Amino acid sequence: MRELCVAVVGATGAVGREMIRVLDEGRIPVGKLVPVASERSAGRTVSFAGREVPVMRIDEGDFPRWTEGVDLALFSAGAEVSRRYGPLAAGAGAVVIDNSSAFRMEKGVPLVVPEVNANAALDRPRGIIANPNCSTIQLVVALKPLHDVAGLGRVVVSTYQAISGAGARAVAEMEDQARDWASGRPPIARVLPYPILFNLLFHDVKEGSDTEEETKLVRETRRILGLEDLKITATCVRVPVQVGHSEAVNVEFLRPISAAQARAALAAAPGIQVLDDPGERRYPLPRDIAGTDAVYVGRVREDPSAPGALNLWVVADNLRKGAALNAVQIARFLLDQGSL
Amino acid sequence: MRELCVAVVGATGAVGREMIRVLDEGRIPVGKLVPVASERSAGRTVSFAGREVPVMRIDEGDFPRWTEGVDLALFSAGAEVSRRYGPLAAGAGAVVIDNSSAFRMEKGVPLVVPEVNANAALDRPRGIIANPNCSTIQLVVALKPLHDVAGLGRVVVSTYQAISGAGARAVAEMEDQARDWASGRPPIARVLPYPILFNLLFHDVKEGSDTEEETKLVRETRRILGLEDLKITATCVRVPVQVGHSEAVNVEFLRPISAAQARAALAAAPGIQVLDDPGERRYPLPRDIAGTDAVYVGRVREDPSAPGALNLWVVADNLRKGAALNAVQIARFLLDQGSL
Repeated sequence: MRELCVAVVGATGAVGREMIRVLDEGRIPVGKLVPVASERSAGRTVSFAGREVPVMRIDEGDFPRWTEGVDLALFSAGAEVSRRYGPLAAGAGAVVIDNSSAFRMEKGVPLVVPEVNANAALDRPRGIIANPNCSTIQLVVALKPLHDVAGLGRVVVSTYQAISGAGARAVAEMEDQARDWASGRPPIARVLPYPILFNLLFHDVKEGSDTEEETKLVRETRRILGLEDLKITATCVRVPVQVGHSEAVNVEFLRPISAAQARAALAAAPGIQVLDDPGERRYPLPRDIAGTDAVYVGRVREDPSAPGALNLWVVADNLRKGAALNAVQIARFLLDQGSL
Repeated sequence: MRELCVAVVGATGAVGREMIRVLDEGRIPVGKLVPVASERSAGRTVSFAGREVPVMRIDEGDFPRWTEGVDLALFSAGAEVSRRYGPLAAGAGAVVIDNSSAFRMEKGVPLVVPEVNANAALDRPRGIIANPNCSTIQLVVALKPLHDVAGLGRVVVSTYQAISGAGARAVAEMEDQARDWASGRPPIARVLPYPILFNLLFHDVKEGSDTEEETKLVRETRRILGLEDLKITATCVRVPVQVGHSEAVNVEFLRPISAAQARAALAAAPGIQVLDDPGERRYPLPRDIAGTDAVYVGRVREDPSAPGALNLWVVADNLRKGAALNAVQIARFLLDQGSL
C-alpha cells in the first residue's frame, strides 16, 4: 500500500497531539508527517515515528509550501483556520478531514462517524469531510444500534465533559489550579471563564438559551443519524476531569426494547464495549477509559417512567474517539475503499 | 421564647458539623447544645456560641444521660444509629429530626421539606420526622412551584453530586488525592471505591440496577410531593466537588408552561433564587453557592423535544439546604406552630 503524506493542522493542540499519537500507532501508512501550527508554535517540533519533526507555520513563509504533496490533511485548529485553509488544502489535492465546527452543517461536506455513516465520506464534492463534535460522536455510536433495533423516539442527554474538550491550555489551567490549591493559593482562571477545579462549568451561549455545545450535539446527532426530526434535548456540562466525556442518556423508543436486548445490540455493534455490572462496581468511568479506543456503555437500565424507555451511561476518550481517532478511522475507511 | 436543649447526634460528621454551624446562626433559640457522637470521637469538642462543648458518647456511659431534657434531637450518624437511638430519644421526650434514610419511607414518620409540605411535620405519631436525602430536597423545592402551575408529567434527572454527600472522610480523601497529584504521587482510595479526583463515581447498587441514591431520589420525591405515581427517573453521579449538588432536570408538564412563566413561578417561590442569564455567564455553579441557603435555579429552557417540556439546572449546598438547614427549618416551623 502506498504511504501517505499527512498534514496535521493544529499539531500542538490537545487534539492535534492526539492525532499524531494515533497516526503513530500505524492505523494508516504514513510516509511523511507534516505538522502545521500557528506562529505561536513556531520553532517547536513534534515526535513521530521516533523522530522530532519541525512544525511548519500555517501562514506566510510556510504557505502554500506545507500543502505540497499532502494526501490527507487533518485539521484541528479552530473553525476560523479551517474556513480559511481547509478549502486551500483541498484545492491543492488533499482530502481534508476537519475537526472544527466550520463545515459540520454545510451541504456538500459529509459529517461522518464510521460506525454509523461511513459511506457518506465517499461523497465529498468539496474535498472536505467534517469530523463531528466529541460529545456527538460517542452518543451516535451508542444510539445507532439501538435505533436499528427499536427506533429512537426521544433522547434526553446530560453530559459530563472533560476539560481537554476546551483545549490543552484549559487542562493546564485546571492542573495549575490543583497545584495552587495544594499550596494554599487561590485558583486563577484565564482560559476558562471560572475556576474549574472542584467546580462545574458551562460552555458559552452565543444566541438563544442553549450553549453552542448543546446546539452542536442536537444538530449533529440528527444529521449523522439521518433523522432530521429526531426529538432530542441536551444539557452539556464541563466537569473537572482531564480526559473522558461521560453522558447520561435517557432514550424513549418507538418499539419496546428490554435492557437485555439493548445490551446485546450494543455488544454486537462496532466500536462499543459494554461494561455493565454495577453490583460489582463495573461501569465505565473516565479515569479508567482515557487513552483507549472504544465507546463504553454501562448502566443500561429500563426506565419505568415511559413505555420502553432506557437509561444509558456512555463514556469515551474525547480526544481519541471523540476527535483524533474518529478522523483517522475515516481516513482508514477511505483507504480501504480506494477513495484516498 | 423559651430556649431549647438541642442534641446533635453525629456531631463530628460533615452534616453534624454543618448542623451546629446552622444552629449557631440563631435560626432557633438554643439554650443548650448536646453534641453526641460515636466512641471514635470520644474526647473531642465542638465550637458553639463561642465555647468548646465536649462531645458525649452515644452509648454506654453517656446513654441515656445525653437524652435527658433534650427538646430536639437532630440525627445524622447513619441509618443504623437512627434506628437504634432515634426511638429512644423520641421516647425520652425529644422531637427527633432524622437525616438518615432509616425512617424516610416509613408510615407514621413524615418526610418533610418545609417549602413543600411543612404541615406534614405536625403529624408525627412516633415523635420522629425524617429529613430527606440531599439530592431530593433541592429537586422538590424546584419542582413544587412548577407543579402548582402546570402539573408534573415526567421528570428525567441527572445529578452532579458533591463528595461531601459521602461524608467528611470522603472529602478529606479527595483533597489528599489533590495534594498527592500535585506532588506526583498516585491517588489512594479507601473511603470511596475508586479515586474521585479528576474522575466521576457512582453510588452503590444494593439490588436491581438503580443505585441506592437513584432509588431514594425517585421514592422520596414522590412521597414529599404527594404524587405516588409520578413518572420520574434518575441517574446519580458523584463529581469531584467538595460542596454543592447540581442537577440537570428535564420536565414534561401536563399543561403548557413557557420558560418565562417557569422563571416567574420559581422566583416567587420560597427558598429559591433564580440565576439565569447564560449569555452573561450567569448560572448557578457549586463553587459559587457553597455556604448559602437557597436552592438556585438557572438555565430554564424550553425543550422542543416534547410538548411543554423544560430543562432546568438546580444547584444547592448539599450540607445546608440538602441536610442541616432543612432540618433546622423544620424545627423553626414547629416552633412557629407551637409544636416544639
